[in-house]
Amino acid sequence: MTARFLKVRKKTEKICTPLLVEDYSVQPSDFASPPKWHLAHTTWFWEEFLLTKYNPDYTVYHPDFSYLFNSYYNTVGKRIQRPSRGFMTRPSVEAVYAYRTYVTAAVELFMKNDLNQEILDIIEIGINHEEQHQELLVYDIKYLLGTQATFPGYGNHFLPASEKQEVGFVKIAAGIYEIGHTGSSFCFDNELGRHKVYVDDFEISNTLVTNAEYLQFIQDDGYRNFNYWHDEGWAWVNENEIEAPLYWHKIDNEWQVYDLNGLQKIAADLPVMHLNYYEAFAYAQWKGMRLPTEFEWEIASSQLSWGKVWEWTNSAYLAYPNFNKASGALGEYNGKFMVNQMVLRGASAATPENHSRNTYRNFFHPVMRWQFSGLRLVK
Amino acid sequence: MTARFLKVRKKTEKICTPLLVEDYSVQPSDFASPPKWHLAHTTWFWEEFLLTKYNPDYTVYHPDFSYLFNSYYNTVGKRIQRPSRGFMTRPSVEAVYAYRTYVTAAVELFMKNDLNQEILDIIEIGINHEEQHQELLVYDIKYLLGTQATFPGYGNHFLPASEKQEVGFVKIAAGIYEIGHTGSSFCFDNELGRHKVYVDDFEISNTLVTNAEYLQFIQDDGYRNFNYWHDEGWAWVNENEIEAPLYWHKIDNEWQVYDLNGLQKIAADLPVMHLNYYEAFAYAQWKGMRLPTEFEWEIASSQLSWGKVWEWTNSAYLAYPNFNKASGALGEYNGKFMVNQMVLRGASAATPENHSRNTYRNFFHPVMRWQFSGLRLVK
Amino acid sequence: MTARFLKVRKKTEKICTPLLVEDYSVQPSDFASPPKWHLAHTTWFWEEFLLTKYNPDYTVYHPDFSYLFNSYYNTVGKRIQRPSRGFMTRPSVEAVYAYRTYVTAAVELFMKNDLNQEILDIIEIGINHEEQHQELLVYDIKYLLGTQATFPGYGNHFLPASEKQEVGFVKIAAGIYEIGHTGSSFCFDNELGRHKVYVDDFEISNTLVTNAEYLQFIQDDGYRNFNYWHDEGWAWVNENEIEAPLYWHKIDNEWQVYDLNGLQKIAADLPVMHLNYYEAFAYAQWKGMRLPTEFEWEIASSQLSWGKVWEWTNSAYLAYPNFNKASGALGEYNGKFMVNQMVLRGASAATPENHSRNTYRNFFHPVMRWQFSGLRLVK
Amino acid sequence: MTARFLKVRKKTEKICTPLLVEDYSVQPSDFASPPKWHLAHTTWFWEEFLLTKYNPDYTVYHPDFSYLFNSYYNTVGKRIQRPSRGFMTRPSVEAVYAYRTYVTAAVELFMKNDLNQEILDIIEIGINHEEQHQELLVYDIKYLLGTQATFPGYGNHFLPASEKQEVGFVKIAAGIYEIGHTGSSFCFDNELGRHKVYVDDFEISNTLVTNAEYLQFIQDDGYRNFNYWHDEGWAWVNENEIEAPLYWHKIDNEWQVYDLNGLQKIAADLPVMHLNYYEAFAYAQWKGMRLPTEFEWEIASSQLSWGKVWEWTNSAYLAYPNFNKASGALGEYNGKFMVNQMVLRGASAATPENHSRNTYRNFFHPVMRWQFSGLRLVK
Repeated sequence: MTARFLKVRKKTEKICTPLLVEDYSVQPSDFASPPKWHLAHTTWFWEEFLLTKYNPDYTVYHPDFSYLFNSYYNTVGKRIQRPSRGFMTRPSVEAVYAYRTYVTAAVELFMKNDLNQEILDIIEIGINHEEQHQELLVYDIKYLLGTQATFPGYGNHFLPASEKQEVGFVKIAAGIYEIGHTGSSFCFDNELGRHKVYVDDFEISNTLVTNAEYLQFIQDDGYRNFNYWHDEGWAWVNENEIEAPLYWHKIDNEWQVYDLNGLQKIAADLPVMHLNYYEAFAYAQWKGMRLPTEFEWEIASSQLSWGKVWEWTNSAYLAYPNFNKASGALGEYNGKFMVNQMVLRGASAATPENHSRNTYRNFFHPVMRWQFSGLRLVK
Repeated sequence: MTARFLKVRKKTEKICTPLLVEDYSVQPSDFASPPKWHLAHTTWFWEEFLLTKYNPDYTVYHPDFSYLFNSYYNTVGKRIQRPSRGFMTRPSVEAVYAYRTYVTAAVELFMKNDLNQEILDIIEIGINHEEQHQELLVYDIKYLLGTQATFPGYGNHFLPASEKQEVGFVKIAAGIYEIGHTGSSFCFDNELGRHKVYVDDFEISNTLVTNAEYLQFIQDDGYRNFNYWHDEGWAWVNENEIEAPLYWHKIDNEWQVYDLNGLQKIAADLPVMHLNYYEAFAYAQWKGMRLPTEFEWEIASSQLSWGKVWEWTNSAYLAYPNFNKASGALGEYNGKFMVNQMVLRGASAATPENHSRNTYRNFFHPVMRWQFSGLRLVK
Repeated sequence: MTARFLKVRKKTEKICTPLLVEDYSVQPSDFASPPKWHLAHTTWFWEEFLLTKYNPDYTVYHPDFSYLFNSYYNTVGKRIQRPSRGFMTRPSVEAVYAYRTYVTAAVELFMKNDLNQEILDIIEIGINHEEQHQELLVYDIKYLLGTQATFPGYGNHFLPASEKQEVGFVKIAAGIYEIGHTGSSFCFDNELGRHKVYVDDFEISNTLVTNAEYLQFIQDDGYRNFNYWHDEGWAWVNENEIEAPLYWHKIDNEWQVYDLNGLQKIAADLPVMHLNYYEAFAYAQWKGMRLPTEFEWEIASSQLSWGKVWEWTNSAYLAYPNFNKASGALGEYNGKFMVNQMVLRGASAATPENHSRNTYRNFFHPVMRWQFSGLRLVK
Repeated sequence: MTARFLKVRKKTEKICTPLLVEDYSVQPSDFASPPKWHLAHTTWFWEEFLLTKYNPDYTVYHPDFSYLFNSYYNTVGKRIQRPSRGFMTRPSVEAVYAYRTYVTAAVELFMKNDLNQEILDIIEIGINHEEQHQELLVYDIKYLLGTQATFPGYGNHFLPASEKQEVGFVKIAAGIYEIGHTGSSFCFDNELGRHKVYVDDFEISNTLVTNAEYLQFIQDDGYRNFNYWHDEGWAWVNENEIEAPLYWHKIDNEWQVYDLNGLQKIAADLPVMHLNYYEAFAYAQWKGMRLPTEFEWEIASSQLSWGKVWEWTNSAYLAYPNFNKASGALGEYNGKFMVNQMVLRGASAATPENHSRNTYRNFFHPVMRWQFSGLRLVK
């Protein structure tokens, strides 16, 4: 487990390697966090929930850091307001790396002890928590660089694999299925409460919708026809004059996309990415099909090739029947977000290895699209 | 059917009888509409979808009214922005009543013809549409009067019946149940697509949560403990300094409530009303129970006494599996709101007679609480 | 004085005669007040500053009205927030007229006593205060009706007289002049503190800028050339997509204007109205001239024909050298607005008779243009 | 002149020496600009107005920089919106320094030519422009560091000298005085148009108001008494819950101030700083005195010791009688800000040497207080 821990810690830093010091502190939107904040927050998590709690010999690195790098854990005290994260130029990037080094070493040392299950569980959560932030880090870095006037390159595309196979539909028979995580491996609390659901017959596409397919929707004036849109989606399109997915730019009458290495031509075979729920839903309406529910997706998943982009489902993010909030700050982890968000299933090119499974429930507000999100159709 | 039509038209006007002319045009919040607007909009609906379309002899009452009193039907042309509805002092209240009289007479005359099923369906929708607005009209009037500094009376409490029976729980066995409207009577499109769902065993309260019970939650600092709240609910509580349901006022250290006839003492046995979803959810958390899903509610409904207040469920408002949007403007009716809202089941003291059934799906944004909404617990 | 008092009270009501009851309560913008509010507020003023203070026998009409109809007098207690004025449907219009009748009668009765100078001064201020509101009432009524989709008529144009004479310039010699009110007649506190100013030679136009002249500015793309504009004016033009004065509408490629009796063709010879300071300044820049200072205006005034529209000056609204705030609530009257506003001189067709003099200092924020404001050039 | 030029360029960079790379790119408020932006913008100024225009051999350093680092010169093309300046992590700090080096060298080389007066004038403006930004740079750095949770030090206090002399008043006799710049030395366009003004007798304090004096105002509940405040000032105090000047923090019931080297005790004898116009005005009201006009200040200046902090005057920032806007982009320089701002006279500890004179007209919106601003009284 120590090896896994150290690997995760190193990976987070590796994602930041291509950044300039300037890139670390800036927050170009309320929904994004500065890379420095991710580096520090994932470190604070270890300090707060593992070291401070279970290691009586541990000395907190800096008394202010809990205040500065807590995210949303109300149990742990006053947190800094999200939109202000981008004004924190101090502590410096160097100081935050020193903080990481200090805490990583302290955890490594602490893990040499004979640890009970409660502690091992915290470590497992800590690893998974940091992996989650690794993916957010990629989103935030892409947003940061992709909104610079100069479209600077990053050195890694994080591109999904192409969707080259023939479009076909997998048929699933009606019946009662079991949903939710099973077995003893790690999962988040929101996947627990395995339970039965009844689903009708359905057919689900074996491929993700591609750029080429989505371009047809654009060219057919999909963004100009309210029939395909939710009322709130239509308002969003009009208020923001949306004409294409995030990072698409029409230059000299041709669509280009910022893909972490600068502007590129649209690659026809790649799964379309950076759609929000409104767009995914509108596309499906235009196509005369629909999005799967998260249950349909999970049931069919073993027969699908998935993992290229997160897939919007038509399920709202709600508690499974027997969901129980853990007590204390870790119990705040997922449950409190179970309103106004939609579930995405699958994984993306930015998802850490081993951090995906077919019961994983990702979730975002319907309007969000800086995450690596696309869609798959059901008929 | 003509009798039903005329009765509905009269009922809408009767709801407005206690109002002063001054009350008709004002819009105290973006979510509310002026009474005059309801009167005109429900009239415009008949004119636009019935008379203009199917009666070649019909002369439109006024060319501007379609623009002024359309609500959200994008198919029908430019609508006036919602927040501006409250600045429309012209046409006058008298002119709007004249408009009603003209259209009511035209519909009545038209109904003397031998009408085909398509037309009869439109009339049925028109009646139900106007009934829906009757309930909104009560909400809006209560909000309008209840936010006046002088708490004027209206002459009708629209109070729910008391909840005097013993608290008990109805047990429902696990299994597959059918959900959705059946039979040939009228329902809205969102109730169609009857389909099977599997539910686990559950026990649902035979009573609604009362004012007395809710007061305990307040007195136990329920509004000050984030553990009970969604993250967004907690933000709402704090930004708005919420301490109680809408219309509750603490005066000389005692809670009073505005109930359409002025300020009153809290009646212990009445179902608590004017909660939003965040509050209903928080109360259930505090109680160590949960809200029912809309499926559980529908399955148990025949064994419950319901209809006093709308009951928040823990189901997001989404399409049933085989939901099909009707084509044209009437197809816009419900489907486009299927995001970011939660389902309420039941009915309230403001629901028109005959306008409730156990498959009815009401829906509001989680933050809304000017509607007559309470809750029932499940364990 | 009783006759003057009664005449003023009657005049306020007469301005409202053409209104429907619906028009009285609505507030279409934060800067406008509902007519009912003006009726009540000017009444409250008499009650608060005269009757309550000096008549021990007086019984306050209604205990809530002080809270509801105070405007900005912090000394007198909590005031209702300005933007909420438009939601007050109660007290009714009828009730407010009854309030007026009650207070008018009480003042009339009280004036039969032998009154000392202090009281006479309050009455004088009350009359002038109500006259000021009469002009605001016209502005607010015009805004209310002029922003209705149907452009209803009011029955009185309040049009300025035409500007038919030849354009010429009045020459004023450099020197020291005295500025400010003199003599024993009434004036507001901001006109006092008569003092000397030195002005250079200047030439001031004997005419106001007309619609025909202003149209040339529009046609010469004056609204599209930032060189004529203040930085903040330019931002205002662009954010609001301004192309013409308030109430101008381009219909079938021709400019029309709402003038209180519906849409009309632009009358070439009328002084241009409903400009804000940014527009007046930009016009002068385009013309290669400038606006007068308020001192230049006052010095030249005896040689000008003025009173058709308020004239923007290039003077900020600041205290005269020896300005002294009166003590108490009446002392709040003008002084506290002496920042961020520009002075207008003259009078308009909506100014009550006898309520204008060449020392009168009107003032508005540079962005405002619902008042009857135009300009005169200096070179 | 080359020496002056090089000195100014070096000085700008020296101000930034204590910064971390992280500090350069962040914009903690719309009114502040990131240090990197100042470095680049002052460089762009030389490139745009000198090199590109007058040196045919010059090669623009980077085609995007004009777009990125223009500030408000509409003549020169699309500018980046102010609030977005803080998201520009690219070009890097290093790249911006390289840009500076390139342009500085190019200007130095160009200055070896025999330059005509027009070009020499541009250079003079460029030097003064960069000096102005040096002062803004200090304000912005102070704001950036002073709003960090950790109050980091900078290494230079930029503290004003103490105000230790006896309070006394300088008497000035009434009469006509000449105002505005005279002679052939450099001044900004807004100081030109030397003209006569008449002023009455007045007495002006020979000292600035000190921290100790201002503390009395606080302790006398000056921030809680609306009588001292403008209406807009009072709203500002209440909406923002203001209790003291910017950078003052009440810690353990004692006022401390952030002074660029961390939190310090309040020094009684230092001139009070970081007041906005509302506060300066309110203090004077409380004291029963007033602020000087900018004319009074200029007339008395030779008898005052000034230069410690900028002094709010009671004059609005408006054009002098014969003000003429220069043509082209440099003509945009000052004139377009002549509305809604108040004049400050004097200089501060952050003002570059040789960049102050008694005709200098500084100006800020009444609400601003991150500049080094205090006050002096007149009676």
